[in-house]
Amino acid sequence: MRGFRNLLHKDKHAPDRGVSMAITLHEIALALGAEIVGAADLKVTGAAEPADAGPDDLALAMTPDYAEMLSRGAARCAMLWQGANWRDFGLEAALLVPRPRPALAGLTRMMDPGQGWGTGIHDTAVIDASADLGAGVSVGPLAVICKGARIGAGTVIGPQCFIGADAVIGPDGYMREGVRIGARVRIGARFRAQPGAIVGGDGFSYVTQDTSLMEEMRQTLDERDKTNAPSWTRIHSLGAVAIGDDVELGANSTIDRGTIRDTRIGNGTKIDNLVMVGHNCEIGENSLLCGCVGIAGSTRIGKNVVLAGKTGVGDHLSIGDNVVTGGGTIVLSNIPKGQVMLGYPATRMNIQLSIYKNLRRLKRLTSDVQNLKKAVSNRPPNE
Amino acid sequence: MRGFRNLLHKDKHAPDRGVSMAITLHEIALALGAEIVGAADLKVTGAAEPADAGPDDLALAMTPDYAEMLSRGAARCAMLWQGANWRDFGLEAALLVPRPRPALAGLTRMMDPGQGWGTGIHDTAVIDASADLGAGVSVGPLAVICKGARIGAGTVIGPQCFIGADAVIGPDGYMREGVRIGARVRIGARFRAQPGAIVGGDGFSYVTQDTSLMEEMRQTLDERDKTNAPSWTRIHSLGAVAIGDDVELGANSTIDRGTIRDTRIGNGTKIDNLVMVGHNCEIGENSLLCGCVGIAGSTRIGKNVVLAGKTGVGDHLSIGDNVVTGGGTIVLSNIPKGQVMLGYPATRMNIQLSIYKNLRRLKRLTSDVQNLKKAVSNRPPNE
Amino acid sequence: MRGFRNLLHKDKHAPDRGVSMAITLHEIALALGAEIVGAADLKVTGAAEPADAGPDDLALAMTPDYAEMLSRGAARCAMLWQGANWRDFGLEAALLVPRPRPALAGLTRMMDPGQGWGTGIHDTAVIDASADLGAGVSVGPLAVICKGARIGAGTVIGPQCFIGADAVIGPDGYMREGVRIGARVRIGARFRAQPGAIVGGDGFSYVTQDTSLMEEMRQTLDERDKTNAPSWTRIHSLGAVAIGDDVELGANSTIDRGTIRDTRIGNGTKIDNLVMVGHNCEIGENSLLCGCVGIAGSTRIGKNVVLAGKTGVGDHLSIGDNVVTGGGTIVLSNIPKGQVMLGYPATRMNIQLSIYKNLRRLKRLTSDVQNLKKAVSNRPPNE
Repeated sequence: MRGFRNLLHKDKHAPDRGVSMAITLHEIALALGAEIVGAADLKVTGAAEPADAGPDDLALAMTPDYAEMLSRGAARCAMLWQGANWRDFGLEAALLVPRPRPALAGLTRMMDPGQGWGTGIHDTAVIDASADLGAGVSVGPLAVICKGARIGAGTVIGPQCFIGADAVIGPDGYMREGVRIGARVRIGARFRAQPGAIVGGDGFSYVTQDTSLMEEMRQTLDERDKTNAPSWTRIHSLGAVAIGDDVELGANSTIDRGTIRDTRIGNGTKIDNLVMVGHNCEIGENSLLCGCVGIAGSTRIGKNVVLAGKTGVGDHLSIGDNVVTGGGTIVLSNIPKGQVMLGYPATRMNIQLSIYKNLRRLKRLTSDVQNLKKAVSNRPPNE
Repeated sequence: MRGFRNLLHKDKHAPDRGVSMAITLHEIALALGAEIVGAADLKVTGAAEPADAGPDDLALAMTPDYAEMLSRGAARCAMLWQGANWRDFGLEAALLVPRPRPALAGLTRMMDPGQGWGTGIHDTAVIDASADLGAGVSVGPLAVICKGARIGAGTVIGPQCFIGADAVIGPDGYMREGVRIGARVRIGARFRAQPGAIVGGDGFSYVTQDTSLMEEMRQTLDERDKTNAPSWTRIHSLGAVAIGDDVELGANSTIDRGTIRDTRIGNGTKIDNLVMVGHNCEIGENSLLCGCVGIAGSTRIGKNVVLAGKTGVGDHLSIGDNVVTGGGTIVLSNIPKGQVMLGYPATRMNIQLSIYKNLRRLKRLTSDVQNLKKAVSNRPPNE
Repeated sequence: MRGFRNLLHKDKHAPDRGVSMAITLHEIALALGAEIVGAADLKVTGAAEPADAGPDDLALAMTPDYAEMLSRGAARCAMLWQGANWRDFGLEAALLVPRPRPALAGLTRMMDPGQGWGTGIHDTAVIDASADLGAGVSVGPLAVICKGARIGAGTVIGPQCFIGADAVIGPDGYMREGVRIGARVRIGARFRAQPGAIVGGDGFSYVTQDTSLMEEMRQTLDERDKTNAPSWTRIHSLGAVAIGDDVELGANSTIDRGTIRDTRIGNGTKIDNLVMVGHNCEIGENSLLCGCVGIAGSTRIGKNVVLAGKTGVGDHLSIGDNVVTGGGTIVLSNIPKGQVMLGYPATRMNIQLSIYKNLRRLKRLTSDVQNLKKAVSNRPPNE
């Protein structure tokens, strides 16, 4: 399993032609605002990690640790940190960047070879005559677009995608294979969705004809003995989902419709794989929901929130702006803005870390108390 | 992102025509058994939250808090609680309901605009000649129905769905886009499945030729050093999945086949998004498995059980009837019937809440013990 | 919901013809290396649990507990443990096996009726002219195979599958319905993927133009108050995914592409349903990732590792060879090889079990300390 050499794609506005062509370091430096040293006219056709790099690759070595690996590969040029002694690494040229990750963002954008699907409307796509496709929309093989759907200019509907009736999707979006958008969902500009992402499944909302189970549970907190089986009656989802601009959804993630109003995802929010957002939720702007996060129904998440992987949030809760959770956090109550939380149940991180430390001493604490009890009982009370 | 106005759909027996028509309050009151006050012949075309409601919407304001918002919208009629002073809210008419959530269930069912797919068998569906479709079955574009499959009368097979060989699905079901049902799976009446739900993937079951890893792990409980790599041999799934009547599956949920007998889901059980039910599991009747629940292989779940979001249940366990778990509960051993559980590992809820309370005092407890040790060591023993 | 009788499939090299034919016990014994007693020429057409077995089934009763159930069914022959008094169970013949689970593996492989899809290239599949299909490749209805893809001999591409541009898949693979493989992904021999599995979604990687949020969080550990909203810039995924031989992926699992190099899955590793493997991860050989496991980006998992259901692993971590985690473990730091871990945060299992035990005594410990404080304060200090 040798490392794959990534093909270069020069035109950032046509990210999916999959062409392989050479580009000069000068062009890259110009696009990234990077300093260039050495042979500016050197051409590269891909990017690679230092040890994997071939003679036509730009090696990425933005820290000294990575730069040490350059000698294992065959790179003639590299992207290095500002002030690096680039000649020490036997290179013919280098791009020097002050901050590695923004530079990486720019470079990967330039060099993304895309999925190679080609453009246009594939013959096998099933598109209702009443659907409205903007200029330059691409629709892949075996995609379905239902009646009344509107697709903004330049948006790519991947192979086997599904766009429901009266759904509205903004311009310059990119939906990978098998994305499914339900009826009446509305999505803004520059939407990205990874394979299998689903928007607009029905909410999970049931009611019993007798006492609510949750009420009952709160009353007892303990044991529960129902002789009459509950018969669940379904609350249908009349709302849809409204998604802002610049939102990304991960593979096999699911965003449910609202009951009456729409479930909402704010501008700039990014959602990772296998995330669930329940019905009626409102997610603010520029938040990140990492892999396997689950948010139950009717919960509000603020803006600039970061929920780390496997975070779970209960229903009808409110998570303030700027909140951050650590991996696996289980949120069972509201979180005020700006808090950094960890654990199950979610606890302020500094408190939780202290709890974890003390837990590891709990065995010793227990034996200390046993010893104290013995020591104290060996003495008569004072009076 | 303004609220979406939901179209009304009058005929509950044809939930997917997506028509938009007006209905009188009188008709709604009749269907729900609600009391009507004011202009009974007022017509509405949708339902909305109070602040979002337009003049043709029925506003939903079943608590005083919601009713206060009526002045922000333009509703002329609303659904209110029994005994509400409906005239105070400037309405022309109102429906008064004793219990809000059952009323909401009935109303949303009446007004569900559906997915707008139309009816009949789409030209592009691939249906084996030996498949048996009941009266009024609809099959969406690019769906696949394999040989020997039988679909009950009135069932809707959505776009891009897959129905495997010899699978049997009961009448009046509704499968959203991209649902996949494996070979020989049997499902009862009124089945609902959200987009991407999968029934009948193979079980995850492997065996090594040497000592079982789990045995080994139970023996050591600690460190493990295998010099011989295990080579996993697959146990194939000969069983299928048997699902009762009135079951719903959430988006991208997965129900695996059994090894010898079928994995079983009882009548009336509802399963949310991204839930996994492992091979050989038996889930009783009328249970709820909320979002992101995972149940490992060969576990039995009773009836009327509620597993809150992100609950995990280990393999070969038994969860009694009426058990309820709180969000994020990790179940590592059997649970007797009627218990309400929370935490990791799952603990009776009242005990777990006491543990959480004491955990937050653990730092102080630790320092108390330090002080006690000092205090006691400063005194000579009594004898 | 009566037990399903599994059809027998004689030819293990053609696992998907779905034929139903009889096979003699003698043939089975030969294939499994089992001892046969009684009427070796008895024919069976399926396998069943003892109580469900009909007269043409081989009942599986490899422990005395199961054998007791034989009288409830109608089996004339059974697979029993070595040394079993087979005549006591009223059988005409039996297969005696020393180790039940390897025998079950062999038997289920022989008897797997498959999905019944038939062979060949379906007319409705959309296959680019430049794709290279090996001898005996099957492609199901409505599958898509993009330009430059190469499929090894004998591999089955199921209905509605998607194979991206320049993807390479080895021989003798079997992809169930709706599996999606992104562009340039490379997969070895005998690949198996359950419905909805996704390989090659883009990595979830964003950078802000100002201070990294994670840096910031590590500095404060507590409260966070950003007035400037972060604007997330995307790092594209130039790498692909490289998967070794004999790998299986579960239903709706997702494996993301790498940023520069490929995400890697080693030979013989098995991955269950709804598992997420993040970008840049490297998973060693012969590891098992059970249901709902999530692994964040750039983490390395060794070989022979077993992560039980719902285990979560943070980003940029290293998990040594032979590590085992219990269900629900949340891994927030590196784990040395051979450790058996449990809990949140992941802790050596013997320590974690001791913590759990002491947690249940925490209330009592707290009151013991209260009593000690009273007892000690009732006495004057010694000096």
